[in-house]
Amino acid sequence: MQDQPIVQSFIAGQWFGKHADQALLSPINGNTIYQTHAETIDFGQSIDFARTKGRQSLLSMDFQSRASCLRDLGKYLLEHKEALYQMSTQTGATRTDSWIDIEGGAGTLFAYASMGRRELPSGNLIHEGDAIPLGKEGHFYGSHVLVPRHGVVVHINAFNFPIWGMLEKFAANFIAGLPCIVKPATSTSFLTEACVRLMHQSGCLPEGSLQLVIGRTGDLLDRLDGQDMVTFTGSAATAAKLRTTPNLITNAVPFNAEADSLNCAILAPDVSVDSPEFDLFVKEVAREMTAKAGQKCTAIRRVLVPENHIEAVADRLSARLAKVTVGDPTVDGVRMGALATHVQQYDVLTQLDQLLKTSFLVSGGRDACRPVGENAEKGAFCQPTVLLSNDPDADGGAHDIEAFGPISTLMPYKNVDHAVALAARGKGSLVSTLVTKDPEVAEHMVPNLAVWHGRVHILNEQASKESTGHGSPLPMLKHGGPGRAGGGEELGGIRGVTHYLQRAAIQGSPTMLGAVVNEYVRGGETIETEVHPFRRYFENLQVGESLLTHRRTVTEADIVNFGCLSGDHFYMHFDDIAARDTQFEQRIAHGYFVLSAAAGLFVSPGEGPVLANYGLDNLRFITPVPIGDTIRARLTCKRKIDQGKVSPKGEPQGVVVWDVQVTNQDDELVASYDILTLVKKLSS
Amino acid sequence: MQDQPIVQSFIAGQWFGKHADQALLSPINGNTIYQTHAETIDFGQSIDFARTKGRQSLLSMDFQSRASCLRDLGKYLLEHKEALYQMSTQTGATRTDSWIDIEGGAGTLFAYASMGRRELPSGNLIHEGDAIPLGKEGHFYGSHVLVPRHGVVVHINAFNFPIWGMLEKFAANFIAGLPCIVKPATSTSFLTEACVRLMHQSGCLPEGSLQLVIGRTGDLLDRLDGQDMVTFTGSAATAAKLRTTPNLITNAVPFNAEADSLNCAILAPDVSVDSPEFDLFVKEVAREMTAKAGQKCTAIRRVLVPENHIEAVADRLSARLAKVTVGDPTVDGVRMGALATHVQQYDVLTQLDQLLKTSFLVSGGRDACRPVGENAEKGAFCQPTVLLSNDPDADGGAHDIEAFGPISTLMPYKNVDHAVALAARGKGSLVSTLVTKDPEVAEHMVPNLAVWHGRVHILNEQASKESTGHGSPLPMLKHGGPGRAGGGEELGGIRGVTHYLQRAAIQGSPTMLGAVVNEYVRGGETIETEVHPFRRYFENLQVGESLLTHRRTVTEADIVNFGCLSGDHFYMHFDDIAARDTQFEQRIAHGYFVLSAAAGLFVSPGEGPVLANYGLDNLRFITPVPIGDTIRARLTCKRKIDQGKVSPKGEPQGVVVWDVQVTNQDDELVASYDILTLVKKLSS
Repeated sequence: MQDQPIVQSFIAGQWFGKHADQALLSPINGNTIYQTHAETIDFGQSIDFARTKGRQSLLSMDFQSRASCLRDLGKYLLEHKEALYQMSTQTGATRTDSWIDIEGGAGTLFAYASMGRRELPSGNLIHEGDAIPLGKEGHFYGSHVLVPRHGVVVHINAFNFPIWGMLEKFAANFIAGLPCIVKPATSTSFLTEACVRLMHQSGCLPEGSLQLVIGRTGDLLDRLDGQDMVTFTGSAATAAKLRTTPNLITNAVPFNAEADSLNCAILAPDVSVDSPEFDLFVKEVAREMTAKAGQKCTAIRRVLVPENHIEAVADRLSARLAKVTVGDPTVDGVRMGALATHVQQYDVLTQLDQLLKTSFLVSGGRDACRPVGENAEKGAFCQPTVLLSNDPDADGGAHDIEAFGPISTLMPYKNVDHAVALAARGKGSLVSTLVTKDPEVAEHMVPNLAVWHGRVHILNEQASKESTGHGSPLPMLKHGGPGRAGGGEELGGIRGVTHYLQRAAIQGSPTMLGAVVNEYVRGGETIETEVHPFRRYFENLQVGESLLTHRRTVTEADIVNFGCLSGDHFYMHFDDIAARDTQFEQRIAHGYFVLSAAAGLFVSPGEGPVLANYGLDNLRFITPVPIGDTIRARLTCKRKIDQGKVSPKGEPQGVVVWDVQVTNQDDELVASYDILTLVKKLSS
Repeated sequence: MQDQPIVQSFIAGQWFGKHADQALLSPINGNTIYQTHAETIDFGQSIDFARTKGRQSLLSMDFQSRASCLRDLGKYLLEHKEALYQMSTQTGATRTDSWIDIEGGAGTLFAYASMGRRELPSGNLIHEGDAIPLGKEGHFYGSHVLVPRHGVVVHINAFNFPIWGMLEKFAANFIAGLPCIVKPATSTSFLTEACVRLMHQSGCLPEGSLQLVIGRTGDLLDRLDGQDMVTFTGSAATAAKLRTTPNLITNAVPFNAEADSLNCAILAPDVSVDSPEFDLFVKEVAREMTAKAGQKCTAIRRVLVPENHIEAVADRLSARLAKVTVGDPTVDGVRMGALATHVQQYDVLTQLDQLLKTSFLVSGGRDACRPVGENAEKGAFCQPTVLLSNDPDADGGAHDIEAFGPISTLMPYKNVDHAVALAARGKGSLVSTLVTKDPEVAEHMVPNLAVWHGRVHILNEQASKESTGHGSPLPMLKHGGPGRAGGGEELGGIRGVTHYLQRAAIQGSPTMLGAVVNEYVRGGETIETEVHPFRRYFENLQVGESLLTHRRTVTEADIVNFGCLSGDHFYMHFDDIAARDTQFEQRIAHGYFVLSAAAGLFVSPGEGPVLANYGLDNLRFITPVPIGDTIRARLTCKRKIDQGKVSPKGEPQGVVVWDVQVTNQDDELVASYDILTLVKKLSS
């Protein structure tokens, strides 16, 4: 035992811990496989390192460069994934289980890298929404900004996904620009340690951005302040306990919890026994019961089935589960591995006994397990077990008791509203699956399910072709649910990043707000030079550079020609009788003509740094343009984003957003929009 | 005393309480003016009424109709405002103070009515963002929805704004579709009661949507579950206590706190003594010290001034405050009224004594007050008082002690980074004001201030023309700050509404998602009929109705004619030499030509129900269109919003958003966008 490797902490840039403390046992055969370290961590030093070195190294980068860095980290992990796969079997996981943890984790890094580069600005401040005038004269505007909180994030994670559990949180806090301290559950922390070692070795992890705590958290939470944050994944009971840590309450430290919950799958009444959706339902339930041996916070614990189909579901589900070989995941043919620890096994079987007080055993059960593999009788295995609830409307039972293993309870329901009510009896879940063929059933049920479930997965034959499944949180979709599920939110695209940012309202003159958000705010000072702004390379172009164009009188001939060319002979432009009867009381120019003429006014025709106008946002036609009106345009550089992109021809380029205001002879705003362009860099 | 009116609760649709309990004293002369009721409220009944009747009446309406209802409530309150003004003087408030409370409160209803109608959909479900494909074949999409939580909101409010404090929260939870139970601070609850009576009398308050608790909250918080919510405004200490109510923790009941904080104003070093900004600074500080006698959670408690200007600020501020007449607000010429209670007066003076341990008295002070008015010596008055900190870097003092009255402490600072560090010593505030002339100072300081302050108000001469001031939370801007300020968020436009909604991710086939969000999702089933969708009236048009147009081949002549007509001779379209050198390797059609030609393909030219195309969103040019390509368009009704609007000609109309996809001969997407139209109703 003395020879088993010590799992080390990574604190203040150093690997820490030489002396053995707690032994970690193999869930497959009961042998000691690792030991935690005995030395106490100086959390004062750790937090200080994060707040100084960590913050400094992260904020010397920006949203865009941190996103690129995540991509590099993901690549490095994938290049070294086989070492992680090998070690992962020691947690009892099959190769499929490990795929979720390892490649799912790296995939989250890639997804956040890509969303960050696409959706976040350059710099370390997000301007949330356009500035809005707070007065009538345009002297005083308001807006919102998001800035990286001035603190450290402590992640307290569960044992079931030692890699994904760390990376799905790390990706978001890292892009946000916050350092984190990760405390994985001890039992599988050796795999988290291995992943952190790889990240450290990659050379692309900024100093102080990630620390790892193996073992006890000591006084860590007592040292946090109002700029720090805590996230927790695990049981509802532990969440409730940690949430009330006096220091967290006193300093209003945000606490984001994602707790195991009593998720359900619902077979809608419209699905007949012989339809493909019926099979999909059975397959999905079986998959969620056996993936990771049912140790997923999203696993299906309650299976809601119309009364008349309960027998058919029970039969097919049991038949399917009977084919699942349980045992040592390194043995060929094994499809379900061990629970993570012997303690888990004990807990799951105890909960099973509890559940059996209000339900029948349909298949599986405490004594049904015959795991394959050497010494497997000493392992923490558990047979997939299906129960049937006697009285789904009663308190207790599967609405309250969670067996964190391959155990699910069938519950018969009377009609869709009864199904929704039963689903809600879980008091808040991470996810529910609804299997239906009928969009009207979805329209009725899903809004009601959405109140209680963080995610609702609607499965039918079409969706099944690409469905990622009930149990998989995705980087672009919110993970977390109300009530028993902890009330927290993670992931969900850039939403998941904003949780780590502090939102502030800002108010001031348009020039002041523009300076703060590094964006042109209408009414603010513009920069007018001799050079057409379309002739500036990306680096030289300044936010606020502006061009007020020459004028153009819109004639009847323009309308006629534009109608002929476009084919748009809408009555508003061509039927003098009908047009007099509209609110405009006369023929007006096509909106798209105004847009086209404005481009004619501001475009600089010769070759230059502007590569393409690839889009347009927020176009509003405000004042109609009748025949005889004279328009002009103001084009102003609104925002620059350096995504480190190159064109298909290899030319480095940046995104430039231009504010366009088209006005008439009375200076009334005719049309207002943003255009999106790609602009070459000087270095190209 | 027996004859003083009893302040009643409004529970389950009934006014409740006949017997006197606690006496409420006039802060102006110490007389008893009201009494609370002695009877115990049945909170079980109250919550049940909210969850059943309240939810039912609110969800029988939708976002749009609830917004209209808020506008009607606001109008009714303004029509009856004089009764409220009269009563408001009994809280010690001047007419100006009461304006903030009464008209500020009604104004918040109007603002939410208008934002709700403009930004929210019809129905009771918000589709947050477009659906995104989760696979490559378009069979499985993901998106997010927001639905009204299935619970009741308990608002626990402060004494300083008995009307605004209720209405600013009520506006948001009401539009969201949640019933609320309001518990105002007892001392000024008579004014809240008067306001609720008016709202009830207006006839436009849906049954069960609002209940009022006068006096103790009993077991109210112990009866809430994970779908309910609590908001709190008041002291940081009470926030911390309520937040840990075991039942709230067990059920993960969201708790949103907005706590008094040690807000600051900063005079930037670039402002010279003789500049207009210097005067603005002094005026703003004086105003915030005296408005509502300094009893605002946003009031300026710390005044950060460059060392070399500290004397000038002390002199001018003291001189300005010396002119403020303190006393009975009904007496002519009185500019500052009483503190709300004698307890408040005692607390404020005690805190002043504490502050004087680390600061000098510059002007005002405990014994300086000479209030005008009959028996005013018995009132709860306090003289505006300026202190000067000895050592702003020391612990304690004005960074920690809050006197909730007309007391502020001057603090000298060395340079801008020192000022930012001192500002952060408040450990999280609701708001800070920065007075500067220099956009570069704002650019440097504001992102750092934003980390610690919920709102940053930048004041210069231009902004001062329309500034709403340091102390005024606005409906469209976030209110709430990190750390000591409670870590909560209120207001901030529709953000403030979404706090009361539950977000869920939804996944499924595009047809299923479309049915749930009542919106066309690309790849979902469309409805194709003989009738052009532009010929349908609003009521008859169905989401998903679609038109696939005839085709058009784009010719060289089109490009030439479009360039001549628009004036846009960009090299990409006209210079064959330069165009060959681009990534497209040939001349391509103008993006705006594609847009115009698409309109020509799908427009139905004759008079019909489509009144105007008033805007366009999310246009992206995806595939270039070279000479010889053949394009067509698919126009699909994406979303309908009934805002209850009528055109300037009095015709009822609704908003219809159309999804447009322009494709080429290879079915590649050329351009993608949404167009916004107004469509007549049948009833017109």
